[in-house]
Amino acid sequence: MAVTTDPSRRTAEAPAAPHAGPVTLINSFVVPEGRDDAFIALWSEASAHFRAQPGFLSLRLHRALSPGAQYRFVNVARWASAAQFAAAHAHPAFQRLAARPEWREFPSSPTLHEEIRAEDA
Amino acid sequence: MAVTTDPSRRTAEAPAAPHAGPVTLINSFVVPEGRDDAFIALWSEASAHFRAQPGFLSLRLHRALSPGAQYRFVNVARWASAAQFAAAHAHPAFQRLAARPEWREFPSSPTLHEEIRAEDA
Repeated sequence: MAVTTDPSRRTAEAPAAPHAGPVTLINSFVVPEGRDDAFIALWSEASAHFRAQPGFLSLRLHRALSPGAQYRFVNVARWASAAQFAAAHAHPAFQRLAARPEWREFPSSPTLHEEIRAEDA
Repeated sequence: MAVTTDPSRRTAEAPAAPHAGPVTLINSFVVPEGRDDAFIALWSEASAHFRAQPGFLSLRLHRALSPGAQYRFVNVARWASAAQFAAAHAHPAFQRLAARPEWREFPSSPTLHEEIRAEDA
């Protein structure tokens, strides 16, 4: 999905085919320099909602160190199933949050993934 | 960094300021439909190199489920330090791999991040 400020596209598209097992949301955000605190405050409201939903497994919010990064913040969040991920995003509380005009400053590019390789040292 | 096929830009830019502590590479790849096996074979050669280097902590390779994803594969790799990340990428073995013409089919957008929030269910 291309980067967007459309509230109705603030959720990653559902899998093209039914998918069993956990899924990973990778959501990249454009955040202007100097607006980190405003972004983190807004994002934290949404993440508090998601952490309370069934199927939430984990999240990691990353901020870019590379100076030229197009997306300065990237959230990587794991869910137990695509259905639970979809239900948490269809929830009226999230829909209200996603419709807030403050998000327009922070275009995002959410995509749902399956983890196909995991290696630890 | 914008998406690129330039071998010399196959490594995330170093942090603008010295950074202490672990870092996370988020590397997104454009992979044409039908070319997953070719991409995974090439990527696996590079990941075998990185897993053997000092400072490697973990990697997770993701494939998009969302039908419209611009970047169909995303690698999220953790390193103990920015210096060890840089050394592993400056290594002649990786430079030889990154220069191979097969990569031209798979433009990438590597960015180095710090993890600023971690939550588990």
